Amino acid sequence: MAGTNSERELLTEGPAIILAFPQLGENIGMVARAMANFGLSELRLVNPRDGWPSEKARSAASRADHVIDNAKLYGSLEEAIADLNFVYATTARDRDGYKPVRSPIVAARELRNRFTAGQATGIIFGRERTGLTNEEVSLADEIVTFPVNPAFASLNLAQAVLLMSYEWMKTGMGSEEETSFQAIAQHPATKEQLQGLVDHLEEALDARNYFRPADKKPKLMENLRAVLTRPSFTESEIQVLRGVVSSLDRFTRENPRGSAAPALSRKALGGCEDD
Amino acid sequence: MAGTNSERELLTEGPAIILAFPQLGENIGMVARAMANFGLSELRLVNPRDGWPSEKARSAASRADHVIDNAKLYGSLEEAIADLNFVYATTARDRDGYKPVRSPIVAARELRNRFTAGQATGIIFGRERTGLTNEEVSLADEIVTFPVNPAFASLNLAQAVLLMSYEWMKTGMGSEEETSFQAIAQHPATKEQLQGLVDHLEEALDARNYFRPADKKPKLMENLRAVLTRPSFTESEIQVLRGVVSSLDRFTRENPRGSAAPALSRKALGGCEDD
Repeated sequence: MAGTNSERELLTEGPAIILAFPQLGENIGMVARAMANFGLSELRLVNPRDGWPSEKARSAASRADHVIDNAKLYGSLEEAIADLNFVYATTARDRDGYKPVRSPIVAARELRNRFTAGQATGIIFGRERTGLTNEEVSLADEIVTFPVNPAFASLNLAQAVLLMSYEWMKTGMGSEEETSFQAIAQHPATKEQLQGLVDHLEEALDARNYFRPADKKPKLMENLRAVLTRPSFTESEIQVLRGVVSSLDRFTRENPRGSAAPALSRKALGGCEDD
Repeated sequence: MAGTNSERELLTEGPAIILAFPQLGENIGMVARAMANFGLSELRLVNPRDGWPSEKARSAASRADHVIDNAKLYGSLEEAIADLNFVYATTARDRDGYKPVRSPIVAARELRNRFTAGQATGIIFGRERTGLTNEEVSLADEIVTFPVNPAFASLNLAQAVLLMSYEWMKTGMGSEEETSFQAIAQHPATKEQLQGLVDHLEEALDARNYFRPADKKPKLMENLRAVLTRPSFTESEIQVLRGVVSSLDRFTRENPRGSAAPALSRKALGGCEDD
């Protein structure tokens, strides 16, 4: 999906993403892209099966070249995490262990707190096919696991990285309601402008003998006012609607089809069904 | 990543995912997989460029066949959303519009509320290359946008679907701390068991004349006790540690290397540097 603004500052801070024994270059590239989407940039590769550098990785990264170019290669997982202070292991499988198990949102907050305190942190992701071994998990401080559908839990490697990167990004934002752009502020019309529309319609309908019998008119007007009040129409919307009413009021169809439509409208407003 | 439990119930409720004019079969397949991961199953395709059904889509779906087999095909976006009560459009680009713009978490909550109220809902995703046109966005009730890195905002189609599916799944969970499995409860040893370890160490060190000069012993013991108290060792961990102390205490190295190591340990505990 489009929307990149190349003049904006590239976010590049946060935990290292450590891929332990990744298998496909394409997946490494998609991991790099997912990291870049959410402002991470430090990629560490432990013994990638298909070698490194990888043209397939670069192609799949969709121009996340700053991540690919700076990826570091390690011969063992121990070496890849040696300089880090705190490390998560990701796994979809229950482990017979004593390590704390966190949801992505809790893990991301922990990483943000430690990042703010100046600690070097990382998240370990295992092989595409089999994930991390118990021995590899044991190297981490805590476990993070994703709230997946238990009957279909196999998450693509890049998508697992994406979710953690996304949760990381969110912890750096002011609130969970925050979005990068906003709707144009909607300023509802004044009550006088709204009443002008109601009056306009009332006059046009009266001219057509719409309010029959006369004692039903107060209820019909009440319903009409309720319908027109709820949407909080803006001034410009009121103008559009008044133009529509004017057009319907002043001009006749070039090709008349009878009066079924007005009767239906009246019924919808709660009028009698006697016509 | 592994972890699927095929005996667990397959989650299949929630909003429809509507792909407007998707380009690549692989992406449709990855969308299906992402949906299945987080319990969504209703996929609607508007005029997929490379045709339907698609073997590439099935292959990329990694056995999310229930999503692929039930995907519905439409000739226009209007038809694809005709039976829905409430629809989000996803976009990474700022739109000059009046529609409310929501974060994924807020949108997912809105969808969950409407789902609970019996409404039919959907989320529209645009073409891989250019997203949705303004006209297409205008068909939706509200906009949802992702908190991406502004300088690298181009999210893969399946990853955009994944994020919304993930946030949807989370709204159905008890709390954001919830995880599908837990660490085995850690029950710290009793203070008596901990004190047994401390006593054991004190005796073994005393026997080696470790606490010199004698007036430093209280401070050295205080430090040692602090180091051993903080980790909240379990009973079994205490047993492991006592085994280690016993082994070091009772047996001599087969290949002695001198006494540098004990001196270093003492220094680390805050001992004097006079030996």
